[in-house]
Amino acid sequence: MPELRKDPVTGRWVIISTDRQKRPNDFRFDRAATIGRDQCPFCPGRESLTPPEVLSYRQHGGSANTPGWDVRVVPNKFPALQVEGTLDREGEGIFDRMNGIGAHEVIVETPDHGRTLASMSEPEIERILSAYRDRMLDLKQDRRLRHILIFKNHGAAAGTTLEHSHSQLIALPIVPDFVREEIEGARRHHEHRERCIFCDIVMQERKERSRLVLENEEFVVFAPWAPRSPFETWIVPKRHESNFEAEPKERLGYCAQALRSTLKRLGAALGDPPYNFIVHSNPLRDTPSLSYHWHIEVMPALTHVAGFEWGSGFHINPVPPEEAAEFLRLVIT
Amino acid sequence: MPELRKDPVTGRWVIISTDRQKRPNDFRFDRAATIGRDQCPFCPGRESLTPPEVLSYRQHGGSANTPGWDVRVVPNKFPALQVEGTLDREGEGIFDRMNGIGAHEVIVETPDHGRTLASMSEPEIERILSAYRDRMLDLKQDRRLRHILIFKNHGAAAGTTLEHSHSQLIALPIVPDFVREEIEGARRHHEHRERCIFCDIVMQERKERSRLVLENEEFVVFAPWAPRSPFETWIVPKRHESNFEAEPKERLGYCAQALRSTLKRLGAALGDPPYNFIVHSNPLRDTPSLSYHWHIEVMPALTHVAGFEWGSGFHINPVPPEEAAEFLRLVIT
Repeated sequence: MPELRKDPVTGRWVIISTDRQKRPNDFRFDRAATIGRDQCPFCPGRESLTPPEVLSYRQHGGSANTPGWDVRVVPNKFPALQVEGTLDREGEGIFDRMNGIGAHEVIVETPDHGRTLASMSEPEIERILSAYRDRMLDLKQDRRLRHILIFKNHGAAAGTTLEHSHSQLIALPIVPDFVREEIEGARRHHEHRERCIFCDIVMQERKERSRLVLENEEFVVFAPWAPRSPFETWIVPKRHESNFEAEPKERLGYCAQALRSTLKRLGAALGDPPYNFIVHSNPLRDTPSLSYHWHIEVMPALTHVAGFEWGSGFHINPVPPEEAAEFLRLVIT
Repeated sequence: MPELRKDPVTGRWVIISTDRQKRPNDFRFDRAATIGRDQCPFCPGRESLTPPEVLSYRQHGGSANTPGWDVRVVPNKFPALQVEGTLDREGEGIFDRMNGIGAHEVIVETPDHGRTLASMSEPEIERILSAYRDRMLDLKQDRRLRHILIFKNHGAAAGTTLEHSHSQLIALPIVPDFVREEIEGARRHHEHRERCIFCDIVMQERKERSRLVLENEEFVVFAPWAPRSPFETWIVPKRHESNFEAEPKERLGYCAQALRSTLKRLGAALGDPPYNFIVHSNPLRDTPSLSYHWHIEVMPALTHVAGFEWGSGFHINPVPPEEAAEFLRLVIT
């Protein structure tokens, strides 16, 4: 059973995920090994290699856990958290633990092993975003869950262990630290000025333009003022909306267009870089929020997290966002 | 001039280090390239390739910036922060920036290009720790500086770009987020119980023994309760002391012994893994603190920081610290 443990000094939680356990010797070899086409559990015809699907989109029909799907969502076979059980907390001297209740799912984005997200069409990407939303709406009904993170790791240096294009969803029994800091920062701004800070940022970036990458009717894409990594890029809806899962279908198409163009530009500028993206959305149990504003943060994995970052929480970034944005604006995709 | 920028939502600072600037195309090639023996600026005889030294230990004499040194400290040629100038803050709409005042130094740990820290003798490691202390005591006199971080990146996956064994020092005009969280957590514990939380942890780990790796007269080495990475290991002085630079010389030898044995065990267990270590010490401007307790955190770089970690601040660790500690206790070095 996975376990959540709290650092007694900082209050930071970690997930000790014993189901994914490796013997220490496993760390000696092949850190970056990814599972390729031969053993791929996400390819059509190998549906039995994953736990039974919780969602699939099938334009041309076919029954569950058989080929014919366009997007398929399955529980992670080696979950960081487990759905079964009650949420128990206990102490051990000055230490605290909680059992690892939650969900860990994989969104298989395409049946085609060789496709990357950046090479997909807008309708294909929209379908993936719809799958994110459908899973969030379903999991939101589980009252034990407080927050859902959706993210993608592309490339071995960004933490992928499976080559076949996929994203992941982790639903947690607590609101994680970084999310709480973001929510609280946004709430403070709203208290002072009665405005959403993300709406303010969108307004300033659109006016100033030096960090702007692109925009369409509904979304704006820019390099943030204080990026942690070179070419960090945010995709933010122009209209205020706190929860990703509350977006109506019409707007997901615009989001797909913005995400696709962003990934294509990053690919053309940097040569298919490894990257992570994270959907930042309001916690599940809060009502729609006037102060928080959902968005996607894309982080190319071009630098390593090293001693300074571990010790300070600061990041050193050698590329000013104004230069990254200019490069992404002008690059030919 | 490097620049500190504050994220308007979370309050997180990043260093935009334009002096280290690379053209975007530089990111396309050879992310992990490290500078080897041929172009090494840290080898004896190449002293002119670095800025003039700020400290050297020379058992057998020799003048500054010539061969003959055992340990040599130089300003970083591509500093993340610069010593010159006054500390200015300014706004840009809703955004904040500060100029990048601070120091960034490199501690060249040995004249021998091929030596690793783990292979050095105790007196050699003690000499390096002394250099850390001497530089901290010197920089402490600069009233603009609020905190000093000393850290080491070993191996390309841990962020090293130069092969020759070295550590780094960054002195900052602000107390970084992670340090502030640690200090505040320790202060809360002290308010409630009138005890240092690290002293409490040391007591519990020595009693329980399941996470203990080794101890000597003055230091205890253990796997922390909530480790962020597999085989994360802490080296903590048994006697309460908030500031690394306040340690008397006699105790640095015990620290060197504990650090050496820790690195040798990690090397034997994991096969010379890439790692970071960070010296956690009290900020410069606080008086000696009853609640904070300096220590060293060693983090093997065996897993990648991926989307989930970026989004949550949580870490997923597949190796329970009890298993890691047992392995490190029993491994033959």
